[in-house]
Parts: sequence; structure tokens; C-alpha cells
Amino acid sequence: MKNILIIGAGKSSSSLIKYLLDKSDEENLYLTIGDISTENAKKLINNHKNAEAILIDVFDKNQREETIKKADVVISMLPARFHLQVAKDCISFNKHMVTASYISNEMKELDVEAKKKGLVFMNEIGLDPGIDHMSAMQAIDKIRSKGAKMLLFESFCGGLVAPESDNNLWNYKFTWNPRNVVLAGQGGAAMFIQEGTYKYIPYHKLFRRTEFLKINGSGNFEAYANRDSLKYRNVYGLDNIPTMYRGTIRKVGFSRAWNIFVQLGMTDDSYTIENSENMSYRDFVNLFLAYSPSDSVELKLRSYLKIDQDDLMWEKLVELDLFNPTKKIGIKNATPAQMLQSILENSWTLQEDDKDMIVMQHLFGYEIDGKKHQIESSLVVLGENQTYTAMAKTVGLPVAIAALKILKGEIKTPGVQLPITKEVYAPILKELENYGIIFKEKETTYLGYNPNNVVG
Amino acid sequence: MKNILIIGAGKSSSSLIKYLLDKSDEENLYLTIGDISTENAKKLINNHKNAEAILIDVFDKNQREETIKKADVVISMLPARFHLQVAKDCISFNKHMVTASYISNEMKELDVEAKKKGLVFMNEIGLDPGIDHMSAMQAIDKIRSKGAKMLLFESFCGGLVAPESDNNLWNYKFTWNPRNVVLAGQGGAAMFIQEGTYKYIPYHKLFRRTEFLKINGSGNFEAYANRDSLKYRNVYGLDNIPTMYRGTIRKVGFSRAWNIFVQLGMTDDSYTIENSENMSYRDFVNLFLAYSPSDSVELKLRSYLKIDQDDLMWEKLVELDLFNPTKKIGIKNATPAQMLQSILENSWTLQEDDKDMIVMQHLFGYEIDGKKHQIESSLVVLGENQTYTAMAKTVGLPVAIAALKILKGEIKTPGVQLPITKEVYAPILKELENYGIIFKEKETTYLGYNPNNVVG
Repeated sequence: MKNILIIGAGKSSSSLIKYLLDKSDEENLYLTIGDISTENAKKLINNHKNAEAILIDVFDKNQREETIKKADVVISMLPARFHLQVAKDCISFNKHMVTASYISNEMKELDVEAKKKGLVFMNEIGLDPGIDHMSAMQAIDKIRSKGAKMLLFESFCGGLVAPESDNNLWNYKFTWNPRNVVLAGQGGAAMFIQEGTYKYIPYHKLFRRTEFLKINGSGNFEAYANRDSLKYRNVYGLDNIPTMYRGTIRKVGFSRAWNIFVQLGMTDDSYTIENSENMSYRDFVNLFLAYSPSDSVELKLRSYLKIDQDDLMWEKLVELDLFNPTKKIGIKNATPAQMLQSILENSWTLQEDDKDMIVMQHLFGYEIDGKKHQIESSLVVLGENQTYTAMAKTVGLPVAIAALKILKGEIKTPGVQLPITKEVYAPILKELENYGIIFKEKETTYLGYNPNNVVG
Repeated sequence: MKNILIIGAGKSSSSLIKYLLDKSDEENLYLTIGDISTENAKKLINNHKNAEAILIDVFDKNQREETIKKADVVISMLPARFHLQVAKDCISFNKHMVTASYISNEMKELDVEAKKKGLVFMNEIGLDPGIDHMSAMQAIDKIRSKGAKMLLFESFCGGLVAPESDNNLWNYKFTWNPRNVVLAGQGGAAMFIQEGTYKYIPYHKLFRRTEFLKINGSGNFEAYANRDSLKYRNVYGLDNIPTMYRGTIRKVGFSRAWNIFVQLGMTDDSYTIENSENMSYRDFVNLFLAYSPSDSVELKLRSYLKIDQDDLMWEKLVELDLFNPTKKIGIKNATPAQMLQSILENSWTLQEDDKDMIVMQHLFGYEIDGKKHQIESSLVVLGENQTYTAMAKTVGLPVAIAALKILKGEIKTPGVQLPITKEVYAPILKELENYGIIFKEKETTYLGYNPNNVVG
């Protein structure tokens, strides 16, 4: 039997484990699933004979080494900062490795040794990063193989609530780490390039510079720009492409309302608020408004951010119970971002029957024989339930498929890598289709930004 | 003769040196003025027999030690980060020390040794910090000595252009380090407290939350909040004061126009712009606007920030030549903040006959015998010329006076300190009056923020 070690049995491991267990008899697999608690792993294994749950502390060198020694391939679903020690052991004991995380500089440094030992260290093979890389590269390689020149690449992805569970005014619930949602866009200006012109958006304007997109059958969405779209030119071999933009998808209207929190300063995670635990939701809002005790918090906010009385944004705030004078935050020494997160979790946590949804769209513009073309490629994945969520499927399945194909020698080019070569993306995307992860492609008119070359 | 060593002969040393030279015969003083270049020092000494300019490199241990050994008191006018080595030598060789800089944690650690050796290490004795501390403490001590309870302390300071040289639409020119002006307000939310309520303003709203103030005889001003007003409660012994606010003064209308740069993202110093050296002013503006080649930069900016066509703000931008398509920035690998600074320096540099102005205002609110009172205390200082600027006077004179009084044993309490005790501030403020640095005090009605206790 071939041994697969999976370290980390969190939310995104469910579909990963199910895929491998379903194949375990046929492919002769045995899974060892290690975590600091075996509870979730046991639930996911559900007494399957080809798997066991073990306690593992990645900081315990002996235990970690002994466990890794027994494996044929190691999948790390740990938070990215914990991968490195596992990776070094994989080098020492000649094991292949798979992660869904961005390649860190330290991970990259292992490339020479991995190649020397013939080991595949596959990273960024979840959803985003992961499916985005693979689907984009498949389309780009196909376009280039026709002798066409790439003009435009835009890529959007979002984790949302499924339409059937979409029952709040924000059209949003937390389907992933809430902290990342609250802090999204911070840490520097968003950068991209459009028709050769560099563009920079500061954080406080990010949610007012959204783009609209339409996904057939799933309606209208909006997207705000990701931090650094420029570096992807190099990753995808598109160094001279005139337009490169990556963004995060929300339902239309989300960003305009979210901008209220940004404008007020509620998403700041850099300082703590005195007496935060005893503050009411209303007190929290008032921290960011002018001192004027003869005016209400509501009117001060409306006036400050110029919100009309019939603006739907206002109802979104009321829905969060933001002006409640008695509901307490209840977290000590909290930053504004932590306080906001707590208020949002109160409203945006998935209910037991709620389902999630993953949406991705790429736009590819290119020129061939003097004519411009555009391809739109879209993916929509719905979650089945709270265990087999769309997020767990789209993150876990590519990891599982990659691990199995590495084990079987079908993916064999060694080194620290991400899934941008045909050897990797082609078989994985094909297998994903069997699980309903299917991109729908269509040709559209190439629009660019200035099709008639108007100068004004 | 008593030897005074002055390290650093920059812009703010002119009045300092003049004061001490003018007293040198009477007080039997000899000045040694060290800098990495002797040019400016020689100009300021102007062949006076009681002074010499020497070359000194503070990183040359031997040279530094030999020079400090010969002094009776050492004044460091170096940038704050260079004080520490000088301070340590002063401890070693038993010398008093004076600086106009904020007390760093490292400086504070020398307190025990300075006290043990009976040395006065006087810091924060320039303008702001300096004259602000002294004038505030004098008023606060006087109010408290009457048995009154402090209710409110607000303090504002600004370095501006003198009315006679105030000939641009911004009513502003660089009279001090331009870089500090461009980056002002960054690095975290502004924090203060008003009638017991904490208030936090994020950077991107700072210049839209200004307060107005009036200074008799000098007209109307505005102020934006300084970073952390809260910590001054402790410095001034006002831990439980309900209102504490510190701000930076500008002429009315400056902040509203400056906000355009903030909103666009032009004051960001955290990343560099590709090809910055070849960009025109117009290209620079366009970096922060939506890509739309059929629209002009002007219209995109107006529309984005909702600037009416008859808004004076627009003329302020035009005055800076911001839309010029041929004028180049000419700085390699520049950050947006560096590019903006270069554009502003082109317009806001003082001309040869231009004079500067320092404006400071304190408001003190207090209660005694059940009645509320308010005192307004204002200072306006005009520069004489480009050498003896208002900034040089207000920064350099308190330093010089303190150094002389330490030398004469009139200020003698040892330790690392700032000028908040009567022993220090009283004689220095008195001497400053002889040089035209005079606060005008007047009683006003106590207003607070809600005098009639209206609840709404």
C-alpha cells in the first residue's frame, strides 16, 4: 500500500480526504491524517478501513520525523507559516510534498535540493492560488499555441454564499476566515496595468473602484482589485502584456457598503481601543464620529459620510444592529478590526443549512492575424453542506488529485513548483471536471477600453 | 571661559548661536560649533572672536570624545537619531546636555546615571516640543494653584509663511522639512479625547475633520489632529482631564485641498513607481485615476473626487501645474510621496525675501467654585529673513537660554528631562519675552461642546 500523510484536518481537508478514501481500494492507498486534535479527522474518516487519525504536533521533531518517514507523499494543510519544517523533513527523507499555499522564499530555496533528489514539491494547488493558475495557463497556452499575442488577462475569484442561502442585505456570509475578509486590501496600494498604463489604488478608495462582471446563469457581480496584480505577469510568462488585473468577487453593492467601515476607520488593526470589552455596538460606531453629544450617532454618521436617508446602504448597517446601545462587544483590548469582526460574525455566520458558493471568471484578450478576440471563462461551484463546502471542494480536490498523480508518477518533473505546466494542469483540470468543477468558455467581442481610439 | 559645544549648524542653529555670541563677552562664553561641513557655522559666527567652527564627524569616536571632553555643556542640534552617542559621552565625561528633540527610550535610560552624576539632560526644549510644553505648564500650574480643576486642554501649533509673503492660493510654503509635511498624519489613527469620549480619526479622513481657530490680529486658521494626543495627559499631569486635543495649524482651506492628494494616494511612501523619472506631472496624476483614455485627466479627477468646476480647490491644483504634460518629475525609483514633494517644492519653496511665521494657541478650560472658565493663550512670531526665521528663533532661543542657565547653575535639577517644571519654564519663558516670544492671554467664555446639556 502507498502511504499518504495529511497534516492538518481543518475545514478544507474534507473533500481532500473523501477523494482519496474513495480511491483508496482501487489505488491501494492508506491515509494517515495528523492534527493536534483527532476529533475532526476521525469524523472525516468515519471508520474507513484505509485511514487512521493520529495526534501530531509539528513542533515535536521526533514525532514529526517518524511520521514523515513512513509516508510516500506528504500533504500539508497547515497554515502556510508551518510548512517549512515539514518540507525540510521531506527533503531529508525523500518524500514528495503538496501544499495549497503560496511559495514562500524559504520554500523556494529548497528547489535545488528537491530537484537533485527528484522530489515534486507542488504548491499553490488549491483554489486561489490553484485552480486560477491551472485554468488560466491552460487557456493562455492554447491561445499562444495558435500564434496569437496576449493583450489582456483579467481574473476574478470570490467565496460567497450560495443563492439559496443568500438571505441578508449584504448578500454575503463568512464562508472562510473572517479575519482575512475584514483586513482584505490592507498593507499597500492595489497595483495593476491597463493597456500599458500603471494604476494604483490606495486602500481607502479600493471599495469605490470596483469593476462589474456578469456570470451567465449566476447574475451580476462586482470585484475590487487585489493587492499586486503586476507580479503575475511574470508568473504566467506574460511580461509584456498591456492589461493585467486580478480582483476579488462580491455581489453587487457589497463594496459600496463595506466602504463605510473603511471610511470610518473600523477595519484598522494597528491599535487597540481602551475599554473595548464594555463598549456597545453603538459606542463603537461613535468612536469614529465627531464629538457632538446633542446629535445622534445615526445623524452624525449620515452627515459625515453623506448617506441619503433612502440609501439601501443604511439598511445594511441597521441589519448588523450597528446602532444597538446595549449589545456589547465583549472582547478585551481589541483593535477596531477585531471589534468589527465580532459584530459581523454575529450576523454573517453560516447557519446549519446554509451553503456556500465559489465564483471565478477569467477574461483573455488576444490578437491574431490583425484581429482582436476575447474569451470569457467562468466557474461556479456550489457547496453541498457545511462539511463538503464549495471552498473545501475547490481547495481540497486539486490537492488530492495532485498528490495521487505524483504518487503514481504521472506528475514527475521535480522541484519546488506551482501548477503552471501542461504536465500538471491538464490531467488535474480533467479530473476536476468529474467533480463538477467545470469552466464554461465563450467567445465575446474584444472590447478593450477604447475600441474606437477616441482621444478626449 | 566656559565652553559650549554646539553639534550641528543647520537651519535651526542661527538664532541659537547669535543669542550665545551676543552674551559671550558678558557671560564669558566660548562657542565651538561642529558640523560635517564648517561652511554654515563660519557664516553664522561671522568672525566673532568668541567662537570657532570645527569639522566633526559624530561617528568618529576619538574626535567626538576629544571635542566633548573640552566642553562644559553640549548642545546637540543633530537629527534625533544621532543624539545617543553624544549623550553617552556626556555621561562619561560629566557634561550637561541640551537637545530640542523628543526623549527617546534610549535617552530615558540614561536618567539614573545622569542623576547620579548631577547632570542636567534637557530635551524637548525647542518650539514643538519645547515652547508648547513650557507655556502650557506655566498656565496649567497657575490654574491649579488657584485650586481649580482642569477640564480641557487643546493646543495647536503651525509653521507657516508670514502674511507679507503669503502669495499663493494654498497660503502655504515650506518653512521646514518638506518631507515631514508630505507625510504628516501617517502611521496610525489620530487619537484624542473630548469630554471623556475617545475619538479616532483614520489618516484618510484627517484633513476633513479639521477644527477652526481664530488668533487675534492674525485671522482665521484651521487645525488637523496630531497622531497621539492621549499620551500628553500623562506628560502634563492631566491624567483624568476629559478633553485633550493637539493639532497642527494651517490657513483655512489648506486641509480640504490637501485631502485631494491623500484621497488619490499621492502621499504614499511605501512603494516606488516604475519609470518615475520620465513621468510628467500629468502622468503622475493619471496613475491614481481610472483608465479611460477617451477622458481627460482633468475630468476624471473632477468626477472621481466630485470637485465642482467653480471650486477654488481646483485652482490650487492648477497653480501647482499638476496637469502639465511636459514637466518631468525627474527622480528615479521614487515613491508617490517623493514625487508629490518634488512637485510641491517647485511651487512652495521660500523665495529670497520670503519670511515665515510661527503660530501657537492653547485653550485651557477649568472649573473653580462651580463656575467654568476658559483661557486662550496665543503666540505669533514672524521671521526676520531667511537666516533668522521664526522657526530658527522659536527652536533655537529656548535651547540657547536653557544651555546658558544650566551653565550658570540656575537650572540645576539633574536627570533626563523635558521643560515642565517651574524651575525650568519660568526663567526661560521670561527671557524669551525679551526676544518677542510673548503669549497673549485672554479669558473667554467656557464653551465646552454642549453648554446647555442638550440631548438629541
